[in-house]
Amino acid sequence: MNEGHHVVIIGGGFGGLYATQSLKRMPFVVTLVDQRNFHLFQPLLYQVATGWLSPANIASPLRGVLKRQKNASVVLAEVTDIDVGNRRVILSEKTIGYDTLIVAAGSRLHYFGNDHWEVLAPSLKTVEDATEIRARIFLAFEAAEFETAPKKRGALLTFVIVGGGSTGVELAGALGEIAKDTLRNDFRNIDTGDASILLIEGAERILPAYPPKLSAKAQMFLQRLGVTIRINATVIDIQPDEVAIKRGETLEHVPCHTVLWAAGVQASPLGKILAHATGARLDRGGRIFVESDLSLPNHPEIFVIGDLANYPHQTGRPLPGIAPVAIQQGRYVANVLRDRIEKKSRRPFRYKDRGNMAIVGRASAVADLGKFRFSGFLAWLAWLFIHLVNLIEFENKVLVLIQWAWYYFTRNRGARLITGDKRTHFKAC
Amino acid sequence: MNEGHHVVIIGGGFGGLYATQSLKRMPFVVTLVDQRNFHLFQPLLYQVATGWLSPANIASPLRGVLKRQKNASVVLAEVTDIDVGNRRVILSEKTIGYDTLIVAAGSRLHYFGNDHWEVLAPSLKTVEDATEIRARIFLAFEAAEFETAPKKRGALLTFVIVGGGSTGVELAGALGEIAKDTLRNDFRNIDTGDASILLIEGAERILPAYPPKLSAKAQMFLQRLGVTIRINATVIDIQPDEVAIKRGETLEHVPCHTVLWAAGVQASPLGKILAHATGARLDRGGRIFVESDLSLPNHPEIFVIGDLANYPHQTGRPLPGIAPVAIQQGRYVANVLRDRIEKKSRRPFRYKDRGNMAIVGRASAVADLGKFRFSGFLAWLAWLFIHLVNLIEFENKVLVLIQWAWYYFTRNRGARLITGDKRTHFKAC
Repeated sequence: MNEGHHVVIIGGGFGGLYATQSLKRMPFVVTLVDQRNFHLFQPLLYQVATGWLSPANIASPLRGVLKRQKNASVVLAEVTDIDVGNRRVILSEKTIGYDTLIVAAGSRLHYFGNDHWEVLAPSLKTVEDATEIRARIFLAFEAAEFETAPKKRGALLTFVIVGGGSTGVELAGALGEIAKDTLRNDFRNIDTGDASILLIEGAERILPAYPPKLSAKAQMFLQRLGVTIRINATVIDIQPDEVAIKRGETLEHVPCHTVLWAAGVQASPLGKILAHATGARLDRGGRIFVESDLSLPNHPEIFVIGDLANYPHQTGRPLPGIAPVAIQQGRYVANVLRDRIEKKSRRPFRYKDRGNMAIVGRASAVADLGKFRFSGFLAWLAWLFIHLVNLIEFENKVLVLIQWAWYYFTRNRGARLITGDKRTHFKAC
Repeated sequence: MNEGHHVVIIGGGFGGLYATQSLKRMPFVVTLVDQRNFHLFQPLLYQVATGWLSPANIASPLRGVLKRQKNASVVLAEVTDIDVGNRRVILSEKTIGYDTLIVAAGSRLHYFGNDHWEVLAPSLKTVEDATEIRARIFLAFEAAEFETAPKKRGALLTFVIVGGGSTGVELAGALGEIAKDTLRNDFRNIDTGDASILLIEGAERILPAYPPKLSAKAQMFLQRLGVTIRINATVIDIQPDEVAIKRGETLEHVPCHTVLWAAGVQASPLGKILAHATGARLDRGGRIFVESDLSLPNHPEIFVIGDLANYPHQTGRPLPGIAPVAIQQGRYVANVLRDRIEKKSRRPFRYKDRGNMAIVGRASAVADLGKFRFSGFLAWLAWLFIHLVNLIEFENKVLVLIQWAWYYFTRNRGARLITGDKRTHFKAC
């Protein structure tokens, strides 16, 4: 580790992993630090949460991915601090010196100052979140089957999803299909088709990042699946058996046992640490403003990429916190480092926007590929194809493809297991 | 639920599920009660614990399996008591009356009066156990990579498996392959091939239920994988960083961080409740002595099957607590019930022993099929085939087959995720 230029990368998500891999044949010693021993393919996490795929299908052990990259090693540890002056990353039990630091620590879900909502309305960021949400969804149906009081049963069969971005839309669509198709003949006392699924969005349409026409399409697809959409609406209170929703002057109290949070995002706390140490500025979401080569002002040896970076140099607004941005930034930084060694200069980072896609149901999706905007079955196929191609391991591509095909033909979600410690606490959910 | 003869079945394992399914076209109303919403294919659980398969691959949602069986319903609940006098099963929040009761509540692992060992030496019974053991195994390698003191590193790379039955042998073989093959190039500071794996067996050979020749074969296969076998040995103490093993007069202290328990088994506590209520006798393992038709003495309306039953009528000794016994007993009881309605009598239950098989490694197993006893690659293929055929859902058959094939060719275990709450507590493992 002491020979050569040492690049330390914090975070094994899309930004960090692609940066590591791009440094493969370059004259650097690379250390990738992550709290988890796997890279998680976030865009498919909602499919784990809805009992379609297994966690391992979308997670790739980092050591396995990098086993043949001789200049890279993996450290499984939590970063507690960054000592910018002495160029050291502080872990819980040791420190690692760096010549160059790439911080790709990502973001977490954010409850807008209502952190106590997290217990009542879990969000979807980790594998554990996904299996917890999966347990809550399927336990709610179990509890409804068991419940004889119609009012309580109704609350158990009500699902509120907060946030109409792509995660919220995908969760709502999947829930609609679970109620209408997957569980249709599973129960004897309830009709799962009676479940009501509410999607709450603060803006005036769902998928606000998409062109209005595609938002309308997505809305239509969701409504066909029985999802009720509330736009211009905010959740102002969450209780174990009720959600309060405000629209303009109207306040609605919805009896409900299962709330899923897909609304706010906040950058990793490492942003604050870095800002404090380097004098870099933070935006309201906790993201750090980076230079046009993704380094920090006055600290050319520190780069910030992915969800943690605010890169305003292209459009005046920050780039969205999505996988393609992080991937392109990871690759870009690797090239900057090589160019520096070769004394070349590199043009500012430019994000190539290849478009946005969200899946709405079993055979429908919306796609905005810039020139091409389409929806329905074709968009769904394109969505499947692009996600399959980008999955890291070949084994996972095969396993996911089979489970998708299986679901397409049978509408069966084989992974609807209720697991975890709270598995028998029906009434607590 | 109030029409017709009501059969309540406690437990959705092999015995309970096969009993339920065998009652399909018979004039009964069937209720299957289980604490979990899925049937678990126990024989493959060690493959989840060793990062080969995902939990959902070997778990089948009970409601899904029974969705087309109109006379059956599933109740997800814990049985707290059985009211034999009033023929009622008491659940945590309601009661269910029965005309006939089939108790197939199975067994749990047993620490011979050392229940405090459970935290230090988890056993393999539930999906949660499997993911916990998986996390411990792979965290131990991570911690060893991080550790610089050679002695501590050695302890982190030492794995002790207590119990040389088929689960212990399968775990030991899998651990050998993880160390020698799967992780071979994953680490930079340690050579995972240095890991020492100890298999502790109290009897004079491993796999004592098999013919001596096959035990010897299994021992040879394991030794090739670098597993050290201690026979006539007992674990007398487990500490977080040390295990005390007694052989005759010798006491050995093995520095070790990861201990897996595959030794004793104790029947479900429902056995005690039933014995108390009906006057039936229990054996030392908590199993209930049943009549030759698997019912309880003086209680022809109560049957006990599977691991919870002690059936001595065939060989004078209890039948082993394995899946084929439970399956055959479940089917038998369904036939007894039909015969009773048709006023026919049925001969006593007889277990047809089709043999025993244990897998030892990537291409080796031992099989004792009565007339045929073989080992090696052919036994391994037979093992794979039989387990694949018996997996409940078609989708799982395909997914498992692909993962087995993948492993066979690449020796890669794709599901080696470290998940769960304690994921960052390296030093605690």
